[in-house]
Amino acid sequence: MNKLIKIGIIGAGRIGKIHADNMRRIPHLEIVAVSDLYAGDELREWAKARGIATVTQDSEDLLANPDIDAVFICSSTDTHVPLIKRAAQQGKHIFCEKPISMDIRQTEEALEAVRKAGVQLQVGFNRRFDHNFKRIREHVAAGAIGEAQVVKITSRDPSPPPADYIKVSGGIFLDMMIHDFDMARFLSGYEVEEVYAQGSVLVDPVFAEHGDVDTAVVTLRFENGAIGVIDCSRKAVYGYDQRAEVFGSKGSVAVVNDFPSSAVLSTESGVWSDKPLHFFLERYNQAYIEETELFIDCLLNGKPVSVDGQDGRQAERIALAAQLSHKLKRPVKLAEIEELRERV
Amino acid sequence: MNKLIKIGIIGAGRIGKIHADNMRRIPHLEIVAVSDLYAGDELREWAKARGIATVTQDSEDLLANPDIDAVFICSSTDTHVPLIKRAAQQGKHIFCEKPISMDIRQTEEALEAVRKAGVQLQVGFNRRFDHNFKRIREHVAAGAIGEAQVVKITSRDPSPPPADYIKVSGGIFLDMMIHDFDMARFLSGYEVEEVYAQGSVLVDPVFAEHGDVDTAVVTLRFENGAIGVIDCSRKAVYGYDQRAEVFGSKGSVAVVNDFPSSAVLSTESGVWSDKPLHFFLERYNQAYIEETELFIDCLLNGKPVSVDGQDGRQAERIALAAQLSHKLKRPVKLAEIEELRERV
Amino acid sequence: MNKLIKIGIIGAGRIGKIHADNMRRIPHLEIVAVSDLYAGDELREWAKARGIATVTQDSEDLLANPDIDAVFICSSTDTHVPLIKRAAQQGKHIFCEKPISMDIRQTEEALEAVRKAGVQLQVGFNRRFDHNFKRIREHVAAGAIGEAQVVKITSRDPSPPPADYIKVSGGIFLDMMIHDFDMARFLSGYEVEEVYAQGSVLVDPVFAEHGDVDTAVVTLRFENGAIGVIDCSRKAVYGYDQRAEVFGSKGSVAVVNDFPSSAVLSTESGVWSDKPLHFFLERYNQAYIEETELFIDCLLNGKPVSVDGQDGRQAERIALAAQLSHKLKRPVKLAEIEELRERV
Amino acid sequence: MNKLIKIGIIGAGRIGKIHADNMRRIPHLEIVAVSDLYAGDELREWAKARGIATVTQDSEDLLANPDIDAVFICSSTDTHVPLIKRAAQQGKHIFCEKPISMDIRQTEEALEAVRKAGVQLQVGFNRRFDHNFKRIREHVAAGAIGEAQVVKITSRDPSPPPADYIKVSGGIFLDMMIHDFDMARFLSGYEVEEVYAQGSVLVDPVFAEHGDVDTAVVTLRFENGAIGVIDCSRKAVYGYDQRAEVFGSKGSVAVVNDFPSSAVLSTESGVWSDKPLHFFLERYNQAYIEETELFIDCLLNGKPVSVDGQDGRQAERIALAAQLSHKLKRPVKLAEIEELRERV
Repeated sequence: MNKLIKIGIIGAGRIGKIHADNMRRIPHLEIVAVSDLYAGDELREWAKARGIATVTQDSEDLLANPDIDAVFICSSTDTHVPLIKRAAQQGKHIFCEKPISMDIRQTEEALEAVRKAGVQLQVGFNRRFDHNFKRIREHVAAGAIGEAQVVKITSRDPSPPPADYIKVSGGIFLDMMIHDFDMARFLSGYEVEEVYAQGSVLVDPVFAEHGDVDTAVVTLRFENGAIGVIDCSRKAVYGYDQRAEVFGSKGSVAVVNDFPSSAVLSTESGVWSDKPLHFFLERYNQAYIEETELFIDCLLNGKPVSVDGQDGRQAERIALAAQLSHKLKRPVKLAEIEELRERV
Repeated sequence: MNKLIKIGIIGAGRIGKIHADNMRRIPHLEIVAVSDLYAGDELREWAKARGIATVTQDSEDLLANPDIDAVFICSSTDTHVPLIKRAAQQGKHIFCEKPISMDIRQTEEALEAVRKAGVQLQVGFNRRFDHNFKRIREHVAAGAIGEAQVVKITSRDPSPPPADYIKVSGGIFLDMMIHDFDMARFLSGYEVEEVYAQGSVLVDPVFAEHGDVDTAVVTLRFENGAIGVIDCSRKAVYGYDQRAEVFGSKGSVAVVNDFPSSAVLSTESGVWSDKPLHFFLERYNQAYIEETELFIDCLLNGKPVSVDGQDGRQAERIALAAQLSHKLKRPVKLAEIEELRERV
Repeated sequence: MNKLIKIGIIGAGRIGKIHADNMRRIPHLEIVAVSDLYAGDELREWAKARGIATVTQDSEDLLANPDIDAVFICSSTDTHVPLIKRAAQQGKHIFCEKPISMDIRQTEEALEAVRKAGVQLQVGFNRRFDHNFKRIREHVAAGAIGEAQVVKITSRDPSPPPADYIKVSGGIFLDMMIHDFDMARFLSGYEVEEVYAQGSVLVDPVFAEHGDVDTAVVTLRFENGAIGVIDCSRKAVYGYDQRAEVFGSKGSVAVVNDFPSSAVLSTESGVWSDKPLHFFLERYNQAYIEETELFIDCLLNGKPVSVDGQDGRQAERIALAAQLSHKLKRPVKLAEIEELRERV
Repeated sequence: MNKLIKIGIIGAGRIGKIHADNMRRIPHLEIVAVSDLYAGDELREWAKARGIATVTQDSEDLLANPDIDAVFICSSTDTHVPLIKRAAQQGKHIFCEKPISMDIRQTEEALEAVRKAGVQLQVGFNRRFDHNFKRIREHVAAGAIGEAQVVKITSRDPSPPPADYIKVSGGIFLDMMIHDFDMARFLSGYEVEEVYAQGSVLVDPVFAEHGDVDTAVVTLRFENGAIGVIDCSRKAVYGYDQRAEVFGSKGSVAVVNDFPSSAVLSTESGVWSDKPLHFFLERYNQAYIEETELFIDCLLNGKPVSVDGQDGRQAERIALAAQLSHKLKRPVKLAEIEELRERV
């Protein structure tokens, strides 16, 4: 194979740089350009040490460049929809970080543009590539647990984001739990029909100031009658806590956290082991590599990506139902969110 | 100490016999009599091999016997309230299996009789004596996890009861989850204020025939704003599944199942370990011993029992709220159950 | 069954009392008498609260009592051989704590007396009844790991015995590792042919004063070519450490310690769990019950006991080979111990 | 930093290619050339997709190239010593796979050449970079377990190498256990003084044909009196088994295997989990990355490497002592290996 995929990266923050370094190990691939609103000397240094030729502040320099086959959209959420539309228009394949947007109607417009242009769009639901969650999915898909009856997900961050971010985050259901809503669909293989959200402010009153909560338990009802439950917190002092279990008619499959080591230290004062890997960069390091490898592999070999725009849209719809349920203090069906949104 | 506690056992089914054998090891105690509606040759043989003098079909033979200090009520649930009232009247201390009754008003009448007579009443919430759940409670009470924020309980039986029993069981919320509702209070140290119950029939349609469900997820709201979630199933093919976790501002404490052994068998086809202890008799074997020892110790030393009638009543109230929530398809506050019960 | 087994207990120290309480729960059994050199008011109180009629300082009062079917020898090691001989002569079945003696010739004399009298002798190798070690044996016996190739045993006490005891203990190989030598035979199902012992004094110089060591690693060669290794220490600050593994042609089976609970506490400063059960009374509590139940069951039903005098003798022979190896600084075959003992 | 390290790779077999891909992700580094005796079209394709300019069959093309700063010696063991000498002569820094050679005198000659040339030499003891073993070392070095008393290492391959390789492998002690001998030094922080090796042929008679064994238990005596024990097998049907424990005066630290996932599948037939990562490429994937990163970092920043030629030599000396012990059937001191080697 002599093909060489040429990549542009839009947004060179932490996650953009991680995708870049992950891609460097992949053969038949060249990172051609990086754009960032705040591109300066530091970014130029960074790019030079990696042999990336072009650094620009204007994403249009990439989008208009006919050499570039695909773009990674790693900029802030509010830029996603216009960038997707423009990239699609230019015939470029797209990898976009989650969520696509904070407004389902906008998300749907972006998906329509992608559909019309016939380009590929992969959404950054990296957890689908995590070795543990993948393994649950494999067991469930293989029928090892029979028919899914209960889906349980625990999702806790090590510490809340800064107050500035909380204000614009879209709230816990969209900002944080969107990953978990995607996991619920991915792990069970079923669509969600109804959502009940219970929330509290127990970590920091700043969440209440912005109409948000920091602790939430969301109950899901799946199309097959199975029940899902996600418990979520903005602050687990011991580190990132990401576990899941699917229970069914023939058994159960569960995964726990990853740890820096398996070392167990037994002393007079007790038995100690490592805290979980601290946060998503550590926990999902390999998952980021694999989602990138898959995207590139799909482009190189003309295969459809496995986490597409519809997956992004469905997770956003569940998040919206959760927001509405929390506001209305009652269970909300996905079938009623469009109507309720108008009224609330 | 020359004291000798004399015990009568009412109901010599499986659990009555277990309590008897557990008591035999305790010094300063004599089992004087056993009553059972169906007492016959087999029970007399059983009693003889254990040096128990009296076997009778009539519980009144025990209750009227002035030699007996305390009774263990191990007969069917519908007999609990009249037996408690009569035993209280006779000044006997009482150990009663859970639930006290299926009707809170009757439960309250029984508690009133106990109060007036000034006897002790311990309710058979054996799980409070389980080494694992006790250890969670100790950590929480010691402040090790700070303020409780999320309480999670998993409660799955290895197989559903017979159809005959399902009909008279009182339903999953009262029959099975009453233990879990007690655990929620015990582990967190807080009272429950609101309940939302989601249920499905996924195991066996016979549950639907009796207006019952076999799979349920119940969300609890505690007085301090913490959120609890209990997932419950009538059938886990791999055995009894009883786990819990309390998450708080300073950390988390979690326990898993008990297993017959820690043996791990690694072979070409995979890594195997034992299934959990099969059901409550195996899992809570030691807990049954300890609840009995504590009851006898309280009688011998004049101390108040630690799991009393109010604990029995509160768990029944949560169960009723869950029943109402499931029927009304909305969250139900404990403060409204009396009123709702009249209306529904 | 109307049979009633009558028991006498010789030696009412800690272990004698534990056997007594374990037996009290067993139906068809009566503890008739207890003897102890230092029997006094306290022991009489203890016996009275348990309905044991006779307390005496002279073991002959039990051995001469024709009502007694079986004796438990729980007195100090130097009394075992004469008591076994006398009990055998009187036709009583015998449960004897380990080791039978510190001199194989004396042990063999005792076994000969037992053989001639046709009574049963069970040796107190309680670990064979431990749920974990039993499970290894079951897997190995069932062929789950194929042919045994490597046997690994870890055996560490929480703290060394008092200096007075060290002097008369017989040394680490006989006093402590005799259990492990029995385990090696039990778990693998093979006899040991050669022993190499490496020892150090790392815990307390008092061991060196008595020609003993406190840390030892013993390598065993089994008759089938498998290799065994036991690491042993007199002091593990975190508690009793008793693990084992058998590795073979089709896999491996391993067990770890038992813990007071499965509670895992995750906090900012790390992840904590319980230390192992502290010492043999906690760890082998259930094993003591089961070895007693089995002994009584064998007597009630006329079945041969499963841990007999030959097992006691073989473990003592391995211990002697280890002593000789440590002294001679070379591997020692079991076939040469009689000859070497004369020369060393 | 504008520095750019230029690398040549000698030997492009499996491990050479892995090092190459691991280096590609590192900034400030360029792989300039690859040599392999069997270099052909396939290797040229491989190099092209990675932007590596030169592919040659002659390692001298690299060694004579003044542009190259450092070489990775990944060719067969018999070529290591001449290549090290020549690279040192040319002033190139060296990363060399283990063992340096099969003859300590030759190893010492190579080390002398390195010393004279003043270049860096890192030996490929990749396990020192494994997250688990590193963590043991950290705890031991921090004093968490006090003074080391017992060191335990389990080392089992998933399957034996081909018969052709066995013949030239140098035997189990040098070929396979050399890693474990290095671990024993690394984990404990002490030198080994005496070795006793016990071996059996239990896996495949082909080992006996070449005077080798496939199952071995080696006991080590450290300079501080601590005792080490390594059990080793050429065939664990369940996969690569690499565990270690250091036990000391203040506690113990132990690590277990790594697994593809933490998934636990509970079904009617038992509880299943993943087999360990299959072999060294999977298990030590991250360790290979980190040893490479460290080597490059040392070159970029002029720091001494942390696993040097002396470490390579010491491990080879322990292996030789084990070979001699196995042959002589007695413990062998490291101080006597030179003398014994002449005589045996």
